[in-house]
Amino acid sequence: MSKKNIIILNGPNLNLLGKREESLYGKNNLSKLNKSLEKHAKIYGISLSFFQSNSEGRILDYMQKRLYNFEALIINAGGYTHTSIALRDCLKMFEGLIYEVHISNIYNRETFRRKSLLSQISDGVICGAGVLGYELAMDAIVLEKKW
Amino acid sequence: MSKKNIIILNGPNLNLLGKREESLYGKNNLSKLNKSLEKHAKIYGISLSFFQSNSEGRILDYMQKRLYNFEALIINAGGYTHTSIALRDCLKMFEGLIYEVHISNIYNRETFRRKSLLSQISDGVICGAGVLGYELAMDAIVLEKKW
Amino acid sequence: MSKKNIIILNGPNLNLLGKREESLYGKNNLSKLNKSLEKHAKIYGISLSFFQSNSEGRILDYMQKRLYNFEALIINAGGYTHTSIALRDCLKMFEGLIYEVHISNIYNRETFRRKSLLSQISDGVICGAGVLGYELAMDAIVLEKKW
Amino acid sequence: MSKKNIIILNGPNLNLLGKREESLYGKNNLSKLNKSLEKHAKIYGISLSFFQSNSEGRILDYMQKRLYNFEALIINAGGYTHTSIALRDCLKMFEGLIYEVHISNIYNRETFRRKSLLSQISDGVICGAGVLGYELAMDAIVLEKKW
Amino acid sequence: MSKKNIIILNGPNLNLLGKREESLYGKNNLSKLNKSLEKHAKIYGISLSFFQSNSEGRILDYMQKRLYNFEALIINAGGYTHTSIALRDCLKMFEGLIYEVHISNIYNRETFRRKSLLSQISDGVICGAGVLGYELAMDAIVLEKKW
Amino acid sequence: MSKKNIIILNGPNLNLLGKREESLYGKNNLSKLNKSLEKHAKIYGISLSFFQSNSEGRILDYMQKRLYNFEALIINAGGYTHTSIALRDCLKMFEGLIYEVHISNIYNRETFRRKSLLSQISDGVICGAGVLGYELAMDAIVLEKKW
Amino acid sequence: MSKKNIIILNGPNLNLLGKREESLYGKNNLSKLNKSLEKHAKIYGISLSFFQSNSEGRILDYMQKRLYNFEALIINAGGYTHTSIALRDCLKMFEGLIYEVHISNIYNRETFRRKSLLSQISDGVICGAGVLGYELAMDAIVLEKKW
Amino acid sequence: MSKKNIIILNGPNLNLLGKREESLYGKNNLSKLNKSLEKHAKIYGISLSFFQSNSEGRILDYMQKRLYNFEALIINAGGYTHTSIALRDCLKMFEGLIYEVHISNIYNRETFRRKSLLSQISDGVICGAGVLGYELAMDAIVLEKKW
Amino acid sequence: MSKKNIIILNGPNLNLLGKREESLYGKNNLSKLNKSLEKHAKIYGISLSFFQSNSEGRILDYMQKRLYNFEALIINAGGYTHTSIALRDCLKMFEGLIYEVHISNIYNRETFRRKSLLSQISDGVICGAGVLGYELAMDAIVLEKKW
Amino acid sequence: MSKKNIIILNGPNLNLLGKREESLYGKNNLSKLNKSLEKHAKIYGISLSFFQSNSEGRILDYMQKRLYNFEALIINAGGYTHTSIALRDCLKMFEGLIYEVHISNIYNRETFRRKSLLSQISDGVICGAGVLGYELAMDAIVLEKKW
Amino acid sequence: MSKKNIIILNGPNLNLLGKREESLYGKNNLSKLNKSLEKHAKIYGISLSFFQSNSEGRILDYMQKRLYNFEALIINAGGYTHTSIALRDCLKMFEGLIYEVHISNIYNRETFRRKSLLSQISDGVICGAGVLGYELAMDAIVLEKKW
Amino acid sequence: MSKKNIIILNGPNLNLLGKREESLYGKNNLSKLNKSLEKHAKIYGISLSFFQSNSEGRILDYMQKRLYNFEALIINAGGYTHTSIALRDCLKMFEGLIYEVHISNIYNRETFRRKSLLSQISDGVICGAGVLGYELAMDAIVLEKKW
Repeated sequence: MSKKNIIILNGPNLNLLGKREESLYGKNNLSKLNKSLEKHAKIYGISLSFFQSNSEGRILDYMQKRLYNFEALIINAGGYTHTSIALRDCLKMFEGLIYEVHISNIYNRETFRRKSLLSQISDGVICGAGVLGYELAMDAIVLEKKW
Repeated sequence: MSKKNIIILNGPNLNLLGKREESLYGKNNLSKLNKSLEKHAKIYGISLSFFQSNSEGRILDYMQKRLYNFEALIINAGGYTHTSIALRDCLKMFEGLIYEVHISNIYNRETFRRKSLLSQISDGVICGAGVLGYELAMDAIVLEKKW
Repeated sequence: MSKKNIIILNGPNLNLLGKREESLYGKNNLSKLNKSLEKHAKIYGISLSFFQSNSEGRILDYMQKRLYNFEALIINAGGYTHTSIALRDCLKMFEGLIYEVHISNIYNRETFRRKSLLSQISDGVICGAGVLGYELAMDAIVLEKKW
Repeated sequence: MSKKNIIILNGPNLNLLGKREESLYGKNNLSKLNKSLEKHAKIYGISLSFFQSNSEGRILDYMQKRLYNFEALIINAGGYTHTSIALRDCLKMFEGLIYEVHISNIYNRETFRRKSLLSQISDGVICGAGVLGYELAMDAIVLEKKW
Repeated sequence: MSKKNIIILNGPNLNLLGKREESLYGKNNLSKLNKSLEKHAKIYGISLSFFQSNSEGRILDYMQKRLYNFEALIINAGGYTHTSIALRDCLKMFEGLIYEVHISNIYNRETFRRKSLLSQISDGVICGAGVLGYELAMDAIVLEKKW
Repeated sequence: MSKKNIIILNGPNLNLLGKREESLYGKNNLSKLNKSLEKHAKIYGISLSFFQSNSEGRILDYMQKRLYNFEALIINAGGYTHTSIALRDCLKMFEGLIYEVHISNIYNRETFRRKSLLSQISDGVICGAGVLGYELAMDAIVLEKKW
Repeated sequence: MSKKNIIILNGPNLNLLGKREESLYGKNNLSKLNKSLEKHAKIYGISLSFFQSNSEGRILDYMQKRLYNFEALIINAGGYTHTSIALRDCLKMFEGLIYEVHISNIYNRETFRRKSLLSQISDGVICGAGVLGYELAMDAIVLEKKW
Repeated sequence: MSKKNIIILNGPNLNLLGKREESLYGKNNLSKLNKSLEKHAKIYGISLSFFQSNSEGRILDYMQKRLYNFEALIINAGGYTHTSIALRDCLKMFEGLIYEVHISNIYNRETFRRKSLLSQISDGVICGAGVLGYELAMDAIVLEKKW
Repeated sequence: MSKKNIIILNGPNLNLLGKREESLYGKNNLSKLNKSLEKHAKIYGISLSFFQSNSEGRILDYMQKRLYNFEALIINAGGYTHTSIALRDCLKMFEGLIYEVHISNIYNRETFRRKSLLSQISDGVICGAGVLGYELAMDAIVLEKKW
Repeated sequence: MSKKNIIILNGPNLNLLGKREESLYGKNNLSKLNKSLEKHAKIYGISLSFFQSNSEGRILDYMQKRLYNFEALIINAGGYTHTSIALRDCLKMFEGLIYEVHISNIYNRETFRRKSLLSQISDGVICGAGVLGYELAMDAIVLEKKW
Repeated sequence: MSKKNIIILNGPNLNLLGKREESLYGKNNLSKLNKSLEKHAKIYGISLSFFQSNSEGRILDYMQKRLYNFEALIINAGGYTHTSIALRDCLKMFEGLIYEVHISNIYNRETFRRKSLLSQISDGVICGAGVLGYELAMDAIVLEKKW
Repeated sequence: MSKKNIIILNGPNLNLLGKREESLYGKNNLSKLNKSLEKHAKIYGISLSFFQSNSEGRILDYMQKRLYNFEALIINAGGYTHTSIALRDCLKMFEGLIYEVHISNIYNRETFRRKSLLSQISDGVICGAGVLGYELAMDAIVLEKKW
């Protein structure tokens, strides 16, 4: 059987990870995070694709080309989580598993952050576990679904 | 350093786990789940305490006695998640970490299930990952917090 | 064919039936009501099980043990009608018919009494017919469903 | 003592009863239903008057002439249940008992069907018991009120 | 004339009084509070009955037996203040005076704490006066009503 | 130590106290009430300042001059309780304790009377205890705060 | 100059005027009212046309034929006041003055009676003045507009 | 029998009547209006008292002194109509009849102008009839109530 | 194969089409519109049935008789679009295609016109295209569905 | 007279047309659709410009350059229909006709899809007619407006 | 050309400016502020009139006399910003420019402070610029409007 | 001390400034505006950086690179003001002062324009002062903060 592929998709402002607001988001920056995720993926024999963009349109462009040849998506859509119906429409066409990750616990922040347009089309949601959340999402995908 | 203790607390109807609604909750029953959690805990050298009750009052009685000598709580409060201010008040006094787990993705079910009274006082929330969610919560507690 | 079983489940404060608020609830007390229900059940060759509790948890405990070996449930959940998601979750697993009974007409009382968490999972609702409502529910179960 | 009179009033689309949507409304058509109600009424020595109309105005015309010489009304106002203040105003002047009947359980259908303008002025509500609901309403009127 | 009786009823988590969150609830623990209330009651020649429970059902059980032979109730229902229709229904049958007490000022805390299901059936509400609130409620009962 | 000062501030229509609506507000008129409050204050060695006005502006004028040389305020702002942001802004600058008093239980009257703009900046709220509420507020100020 | 024409249009249930609910609507029945209005109209040299119907459709039929040859409309649309967009659409095409009359004060009755779909397209509204309201509306039309 | 007394009370900005916004309020200024009202009052043998103030407090002061020796009040409270609970509380103590007048039709202006705090305690409401509305209110008071 | 049949159903006030409000609805009157629709239908070999009524009841009567022998319905329900649950219930039983037409763009008019009770059970909605909308609906029915 | 120009603008995810969710969107892909639209445009002698983008910014860039030299716009803004105020602001400056097209009937899908920010500034809306909707919009533009 | 006149109107509690809450409102007191505004006004050859009052009525009295002979108004209505329809009505009659100033940024404080009844009738709003806001408003009036 | 830097950031459609809707936005186009702002900046010895984009993503890209080396931001985010949580998240990381500018008074336009996601994280807001608003914001930054 061929190798499984997972997309790690980060939305707006997540390229600044670890640069500020340490109390909320911790110290890890995005490239360090990605490296540690790759190490974790190796254990499972999974190959990862990373993408980060501040642009709703570019995220859609990226995802549309990967709707059918990826097994799973781990997405932290940042601010677009709460506002992008277009992203939701796109992900609804995705055939693989979708895990939504939020580094901080979005449920104890501002009210507008409590509603996620993506949660209703995701398989699972992990939030508040820091950057570890991405890794846990990977575990969930691999172990729960027993590929 | 002494061993860490984590409470695994399940609320109403979770004693029926695996008995019905397989599509939502999977096949594992609660005692099998607890055993597998204990195996997982051993890896980290953690000792677990299990409690399940259908009664809001008994859950409060149980938790009140364990506010200060447990390091973390993994809680799936079932229907009380959405209605029990008393449970929220009690957990707010808990000094350890709190992870909220839901076996199914509560965000794509009925509207009244989307509001959790516990999320605002939890450290993290994991939902939709099936019974694996408890294990992931344990990982989050151990790895993220670097005890 | 074996005898049919129906549970008559009364929630909080219904043990006080007939003790007060005569204009709302009439004069019959609960044991007299139960006796008259048993007489009515005999006509249909049905055996009844009675349960009343003020405790949400004890009601759940009771129902969980009877999810599969009862043909129908006649429930007046009192105040829990409007607040107990846990009870709703439990009853949703019940395989028999469910009839919700309210002695008074809950729709012309306080606003918060107009929303029932149970109505959406019940087969039928009878309210305002006084204690006769339980008997009518039994008729509905037997006659409509043509066991 | 003279014979009691009950009006059986059916609103819009109930003339089509039994013609479609069998799963919701069963197979009985309206004239068969009326006949079976008449048989049931005979037991109690009650005489029935039947009326069905798709027109809010004609229903009002009919009811206005019968405000004082009927002992009870069993009404299934169909779609007007949720929209007709005029009907509510008229029924409020009715001196007899009012039982509201719905063949299906309106509480687990569309949201706008959950609000009844008539429930607040009715003595009782029976829904989800199929066409048997009319008969149960008759029982409620006769037995509970002990004419 | 015989001695007056007042129930001092405390709901969930109030057994932990004085153990934590000193800024909100002060230092007095529940048994010390009860003793000081008894001293205060002696002045008025009143006898007190104390009850605390974390269980909604046990509170109902307790109150139901005391509906007719107590002159007044001082209740701090904790989290059940905002969620228990069953408690409200029970207290509505109570024939004596009802004073609702909250140790902290519930009106400047979370939004969900601002709505009390009990206030509409209480005679008075005292909040923010610390544990002294119970004593003030006793004063209100004795002095205002001029027993 | 010098004598403590407390302001007793009554808002619109409270000058009519005791003149009408006896069932709601009792028989005491405002000057009799003030006298009895003064008697009560003497016990504690407190000096009182009384002010009543129907004018939001004059209440503000009065309070602004007393922001720094009074230890506490007992306020029954009448109708301004629910509408005056200006009064709230002014009282927020007050350095002493603030107790809000309502003679009747405002929580079981009209809906618009349930929201108080002042409660969020008050230390405590006492309502439904009749005119005794002012005295209880004084007790709360003196005893709880242990001047 | 030719004589002015005013339509007196009464909606559902107003044909029962004076038959019941005396405290709300007084004793005058509709034909007596119409006669007294005609007497009043004579003073101004106005000719009146009367129409009452329980049917929304018949009211529309009637009004549509009189959109251009009547100077004014005095309408008490009863229950249709609050629900008929069709009537509002029709009256918006009416070229004359429109006065809305309600015999009782609709603003201190049920909440749903406080919203009038017609008020926004009427020139004036008179309510609570009993059947005199029709006469006052006529005065308003004649005197204010100075035909 | 002694002469009847009616208060004509105008709230904020009504002293500017006729000075601006002719299309909304017409040309009559307040003193001309008052004179014409006095002429009208003579017909009925009624004596009028006029009061206008921009100050909520002064309006309350004025009304409080006239709660018991006036037979009726015609009030156009201007902007206070929608915001003054204090005025509502005061008028509720008034023993005479209350008619609320609005020169323009407040129901087809801004949304916030559609809610009147006074309508629920008034006997009648007249709006959109221009300054004639005051005269119509007087007619309503005299004729309907048949002094 | 036999000829297809389409119903053109117009609701309240649409008989006045072209008589007024030219800017909103254009100049065509209803009979001219129907003729032009018939011409258009000939191209497709479709036969049309026209019905217009101001009465909700008559529209229901008409539709109920045509539930099974018509292939499609083009409906402009006027004001009933937003208020008639009875019409919705009836159309839900219709077996053919349903296109909802509005001559003006209902989405940029009053708020209450933006909610259509029919849109959720229609196949398509065309609005703002003037009377041409009926023709476009016919095109949609014929071309899209490829009869 | 020179040739008319119409822009066919498709928003996010519409480039995937025909690739998935056949039941909702049919089989036609976007380039086939565009070709068939061009064929249709030729009949009217109209020239079309096509644009599709997943990016809100690029859509704005595109439209801003074409505000003055295009006669009409047919737009299916996909997910941006419901969220883009920026697009609405831009289109408001467009001088030509605007028709909003939705392939599926957006009114019987999720609640958030029922509100369109564009409908209030569009001339017409066509939805549920499948890809034929674009052609119908073109017909509406040409025929209704009689260029 | 004669000199321009601008009113600087400050509402409730602004006489206390600089006395407290330095972090929100800075150190400048009102008379110092007024002096510095006068210095600034001299540059433009403008004469200023200052008014501050805690009374809604006195503010209305003051403004009503200056509706026609002042070119502009700079108003900080404090708490009345959010509650005074009477002030809004009065200012709507003002013929000059209106700039609303708030010293702090009212949009990041309590929710009820975010709605201004005056903003809809003002020409501009400046908030969060401290006491400098008044000066900026003056600049806006003079420079933008190019008197 | 080195020169201060301010970013002038304009969002979607502001590149069209002065091209249309003169009554709302005036005649100045963006490059003329920028020049005049530069002239104004010279007085203060400030250097400006200008950026305009229709793309949310490009605005984020731009701002992220300038989070730490700019002293202040003057932003008119156009339509993104009301919808972009991503922009808000980004600006929250900005260390300098933030002034929000709107050329027109957004508070007296459509309802959805009254809520700004940026106001809660801005230092000040200036709206309705036309293009002068940018200059006033610069003044506010320089003078109020006394660099």
